[in-house]
Amino acid sequence: MSTWGERLRLSIFGGSHSKAIGVVLEGLPAGEVLDWEKILLQMRRRAPGQDKTATPRKESDLPEILSGIDGDMVLTGDPVSVCIYNSNQHSKDYESLRHTPRPGHADYPAYVKYHGKNDLRGGGHFSGRLTAPLVFAGAVCRQLLEKRGILIGSHVLSAGGVWDEVFDSVQVTAEELRRLSEMYFPVLSDTARQKMTDRITEVRSRGDSVGGVVECAVTGLPVGLGTHMFGGMENVLSSLLFGIPAMKGIEFGAGFRAAEMMGSENNDSFYYDESGEVRTATNHAGGVLGGMTSGMPLLFRVAFKPTPSIVAAQQTVHLGEKRDARIAIKGRHDPCIVPRAAPAVEAAAAVAVCELMLREGRFS
Amino acid sequence: MSTWGERLRLSIFGGSHSKAIGVVLEGLPAGEVLDWEKILLQMRRRAPGQDKTATPRKESDLPEILSGIDGDMVLTGDPVSVCIYNSNQHSKDYESLRHTPRPGHADYPAYVKYHGKNDLRGGGHFSGRLTAPLVFAGAVCRQLLEKRGILIGSHVLSAGGVWDEVFDSVQVTAEELRRLSEMYFPVLSDTARQKMTDRITEVRSRGDSVGGVVECAVTGLPVGLGTHMFGGMENVLSSLLFGIPAMKGIEFGAGFRAAEMMGSENNDSFYYDESGEVRTATNHAGGVLGGMTSGMPLLFRVAFKPTPSIVAAQQTVHLGEKRDARIAIKGRHDPCIVPRAAPAVEAAAAVAVCELMLREGRFS
Amino acid sequence: MSTWGERLRLSIFGGSHSKAIGVVLEGLPAGEVLDWEKILLQMRRRAPGQDKTATPRKESDLPEILSGIDGDMVLTGDPVSVCIYNSNQHSKDYESLRHTPRPGHADYPAYVKYHGKNDLRGGGHFSGRLTAPLVFAGAVCRQLLEKRGILIGSHVLSAGGVWDEVFDSVQVTAEELRRLSEMYFPVLSDTARQKMTDRITEVRSRGDSVGGVVECAVTGLPVGLGTHMFGGMENVLSSLLFGIPAMKGIEFGAGFRAAEMMGSENNDSFYYDESGEVRTATNHAGGVLGGMTSGMPLLFRVAFKPTPSIVAAQQTVHLGEKRDARIAIKGRHDPCIVPRAAPAVEAAAAVAVCELMLREGRFS
Amino acid sequence: MSTWGERLRLSIFGGSHSKAIGVVLEGLPAGEVLDWEKILLQMRRRAPGQDKTATPRKESDLPEILSGIDGDMVLTGDPVSVCIYNSNQHSKDYESLRHTPRPGHADYPAYVKYHGKNDLRGGGHFSGRLTAPLVFAGAVCRQLLEKRGILIGSHVLSAGGVWDEVFDSVQVTAEELRRLSEMYFPVLSDTARQKMTDRITEVRSRGDSVGGVVECAVTGLPVGLGTHMFGGMENVLSSLLFGIPAMKGIEFGAGFRAAEMMGSENNDSFYYDESGEVRTATNHAGGVLGGMTSGMPLLFRVAFKPTPSIVAAQQTVHLGEKRDARIAIKGRHDPCIVPRAAPAVEAAAAVAVCELMLREGRFS
Repeated sequence: MSTWGERLRLSIFGGSHSKAIGVVLEGLPAGEVLDWEKILLQMRRRAPGQDKTATPRKESDLPEILSGIDGDMVLTGDPVSVCIYNSNQHSKDYESLRHTPRPGHADYPAYVKYHGKNDLRGGGHFSGRLTAPLVFAGAVCRQLLEKRGILIGSHVLSAGGVWDEVFDSVQVTAEELRRLSEMYFPVLSDTARQKMTDRITEVRSRGDSVGGVVECAVTGLPVGLGTHMFGGMENVLSSLLFGIPAMKGIEFGAGFRAAEMMGSENNDSFYYDESGEVRTATNHAGGVLGGMTSGMPLLFRVAFKPTPSIVAAQQTVHLGEKRDARIAIKGRHDPCIVPRAAPAVEAAAAVAVCELMLREGRFS
Repeated sequence: MSTWGERLRLSIFGGSHSKAIGVVLEGLPAGEVLDWEKILLQMRRRAPGQDKTATPRKESDLPEILSGIDGDMVLTGDPVSVCIYNSNQHSKDYESLRHTPRPGHADYPAYVKYHGKNDLRGGGHFSGRLTAPLVFAGAVCRQLLEKRGILIGSHVLSAGGVWDEVFDSVQVTAEELRRLSEMYFPVLSDTARQKMTDRITEVRSRGDSVGGVVECAVTGLPVGLGTHMFGGMENVLSSLLFGIPAMKGIEFGAGFRAAEMMGSENNDSFYYDESGEVRTATNHAGGVLGGMTSGMPLLFRVAFKPTPSIVAAQQTVHLGEKRDARIAIKGRHDPCIVPRAAPAVEAAAAVAVCELMLREGRFS
Repeated sequence: MSTWGERLRLSIFGGSHSKAIGVVLEGLPAGEVLDWEKILLQMRRRAPGQDKTATPRKESDLPEILSGIDGDMVLTGDPVSVCIYNSNQHSKDYESLRHTPRPGHADYPAYVKYHGKNDLRGGGHFSGRLTAPLVFAGAVCRQLLEKRGILIGSHVLSAGGVWDEVFDSVQVTAEELRRLSEMYFPVLSDTARQKMTDRITEVRSRGDSVGGVVECAVTGLPVGLGTHMFGGMENVLSSLLFGIPAMKGIEFGAGFRAAEMMGSENNDSFYYDESGEVRTATNHAGGVLGGMTSGMPLLFRVAFKPTPSIVAAQQTVHLGEKRDARIAIKGRHDPCIVPRAAPAVEAAAAVAVCELMLREGRFS
Repeated sequence: MSTWGERLRLSIFGGSHSKAIGVVLEGLPAGEVLDWEKILLQMRRRAPGQDKTATPRKESDLPEILSGIDGDMVLTGDPVSVCIYNSNQHSKDYESLRHTPRPGHADYPAYVKYHGKNDLRGGGHFSGRLTAPLVFAGAVCRQLLEKRGILIGSHVLSAGGVWDEVFDSVQVTAEELRRLSEMYFPVLSDTARQKMTDRITEVRSRGDSVGGVVECAVTGLPVGLGTHMFGGMENVLSSLLFGIPAMKGIEFGAGFRAAEMMGSENNDSFYYDESGEVRTATNHAGGVLGGMTSGMPLLFRVAFKPTPSIVAAQQTVHLGEKRDARIAIKGRHDPCIVPRAAPAVEAAAAVAVCELMLREGRFS
């Protein structure tokens, strides 16, 4: 299902090797003026081929607006639609894979589900390339949020076992998030980035891959955004975020670490700060209480598995001939998807926050 | 938002101190015969007051069927509705809390969102008591699944820092899950349960609380259940699960640990087993690839924070008088919600799986 | 499907002979104070047994609030849930009908769909009795609208071929609608009501039934409510209204009559009235242009077929024995459902308008 | 809102003068083979400029497949996306209209709603041109239905006050519907078409316009498709159909005429036909009982108002200068939209039926 949202309707189409991929985005308020350069910046952050930690595939990823944004970059109130033409496709790379599912990929369940009819080339609709339309949608949404003082940023908290510093859960600032949100391969510590790059380069040279964790923060959110039960910030965010390929987990605030704390330690006590705002001394809640934003920074971490496409021969099966088989994946793949996943995570956060803002009539 | 689902429509109502709580569940196939005892068993697993690890509040939690199930316990095809009358309410326990939000609770954002109008008594609609209708819904759904060979079970993987064994991700059996799914405080190791109980009892004696992790497994699922992008098993499960109060994180298969693996290690290689079924040698994927079930056991873990209601005085604010304040929570609370959360996690899994089965017409 | 709405979530449960029927209604703003008497008034307007044009079945239809409305009749912000206990059931009336579908009823397709398992007693979930929860939901919604100057009223435009006057599509006033919305068997002309009553009484004496048309108006709506394409006022209203049993058609403004007009005649020309408001000289559009409200009164008519339950023996089939058969329906039925349908139509309009108001954040 | 559907997700984008219009359609089963010529045939039926009853605007309306259909015209299981590039735009025709809303158009409420920011050129997203993507979606859906014996056809029942014959509600055949569904300006009686054409041509010469009624039938539907209450065939169909511009009413079977019948007359009695099928002697129900298909032909009629764009000067207001004004619409418009609306009505029916089939798992 490539459709998401109730008030902000997102519909993503295309596969990594179809004629085009794209997105339809409906529900944003009319009259907002967009900055095209800021959209392109986000597209570039996600685009492949930027350094040695990524796939050498080159894709321009230039979005072509079909509707919903006029010549002055103003939202008309109608659905925004955009397509990104595919190019540089190596379909034949995938020809041999039809009956031999790649370990760690969607190939096998897709084969069973679609009776062998689904488009396997490049992962088809399951491809990481489909995050490009998501990033476009997020690049539009985050501009509307930024005008209202809501900033979103993330960094690569870990990659290949190398760890960056963590966000200061209480003090993370809009300025810091803005800076991160414009970086390719965002990290808090330059040293960590260098070590991560070294690690990924080394892993690539062995034809292997690594995973990692993205930590994302949102500041400036109004208090009380989201609802109890199934309309909570966590529900809405995770229902969208798990659409990013290779994601295997999400935690808010202290997350799995909270499971090992005492209540007296984990509870964030309230106080009035100097400007008369209610704040909490700690932020183990990650800015969410009972599904609703607490006014503290929203903080969550998402885990990405290592890219399943590796060079080494792997054990698999031949589904046509019903026998065990071996497979060696050629193609050109990211040894670590995490740096390029960070803008997708931010984009999903932007879309999810806009959805909740629209549900509650908070855009007027 | 207390409504969930597209084909299986779940609508939960009531607060911990309203006249009744309950659920409307629509979309299940007509003609299925239910076992009332199995429903009551699940209700009891979640009910409070069963041992010293739980709140001494006694609630019968006896569901009263209003419609949708006939006198022979057959689903009529119409919406199933049930209510559970509240009793044993101590509303006055909460009277003093109206302006002094409890740390770790939804009180503060709810106060801001509802302008002080929301029902604070017992957490109102944010209360853990609202998992009772969810457990009822799950108790119905899991019976339909069990008839089709799909078993769901969970155990308390950790509580208060004490750890149980983990599921064997490849070998976990229907029998094991059936056994766990009938236990109060399910664990794999009796020793672990004893240590957990000791730990929780000790923490309770100090007026503090602890959190923990529930590990859940589902066996017998068809291959290919769920879809790419936003209709994936992870998206659907997490959008429902985060409706369980105190949940702070979810991970599938190796989850956050996968983020530290190499691709060559994390990828689960395929093979044909003796009966001609496609299986994987390991199950780091947790039974999900590209949002779809792989045929291997579905495995996920959810983290619960410590119960925020603790006896010790805590720092908070007085929202009416706009000043800092202190609060001491009386009431009667669970020192550890995790044992009672396990049946709620299983129930959510049952509902989510039924939703996906219905979406794909797999109930016929 | 007994669930409706995106922002205002309506879930109706129960059948005419289950233990109770009821409704869960979620999404209304917290803190609104309701008038219980106004709710009961609407329930009475729909209740059976009020005069000779209706079924002699007596049902108190007293709603019991389960949650969401506190002791001071204030909306808490949580889902409103209510149940109406069934009484005065004559289940045995329906026993003989299981295999012989009543002409004009849902029996036959329900039998095929549910393999003979659906609850046939009193129409089960297809019964007109299910409009009681709808009327309750509408009675809540219309109070919120009335406070914002939005009035809803309807009248029986025709019954048994006897016609009332039509609304003045340009001049219909809030006062007129308020008056109608408090009447049982609302009409504009008392003479028409007398003739209709005579006609229905006469038809009843012959054991037959008649249908009719309800004309409904809404004044005070903001301009621009609703959207193009599938979110239009007509789409939203009709998707809810067709849930009222026996409804066979709906038209807005001039409706089917517009199909015979010239454009120069049908177009409503704009002008500024004395108070500086934009109005139209005529209102063939029925207050909707491009799916959005125009600021003129919203006007629509819905057609109801004659009650299918008639005394005369009818030709049907025996589905068990696969042969033709005859059927004579006993029970106690309305010779004309239209007077009691009017409050249901108004209720649906109230719910639909609230849904659109919530979608657009117009309740703040 | 340009998104529709739960299992079949339709998302339409573009305006009459944006770069492109198009549609994303998700949820259809993978592996179905389409006939491109049949798609083009439907696009041509809707395209303008075919005879003197339509606008002389020429648009090729050639859909370009972006994804979801492979080179062999097989559905891949991923979202189908298509765009139709706009050409032959006369934007300057609309420049003068920004502040002077055209009577009968969406201009005025759109101006208020979007604060004057919406794209007025050619009606923007409210344009009848947006039925082109709908017809594409329907052209895909109807092929899947036809393979399963479900045929959809319609005819112009009236145009400009000239009436065609009505469908035989009991005897209408698949062959008749197939024939009609391939015709431009479908009618049952050639004489009626000639008279309609004469009438429309005459009206056009006076710069005026007329409306009309489309009657649509669907045969071969399974019994029991659709559900009670809000998931009924009527609800689902009307929620989609009212997205077709200029539609003002819909009725099923005898519709408004049923409101004037006796129950004994309107009830359709059941019998077993020679082949052992349950049928009804009449079909006043229009093939729907209790929201579910009865096995008899599904029959409904929709009313279209006259095209609001007429040549004669009309009274309107100047919203910028807040004064009355006059307007003369140039552009090139259809004097009667009804012949071109027929394929759009059929397309909507095809989409709605597929949605219900998918909801009930009836495609396997």
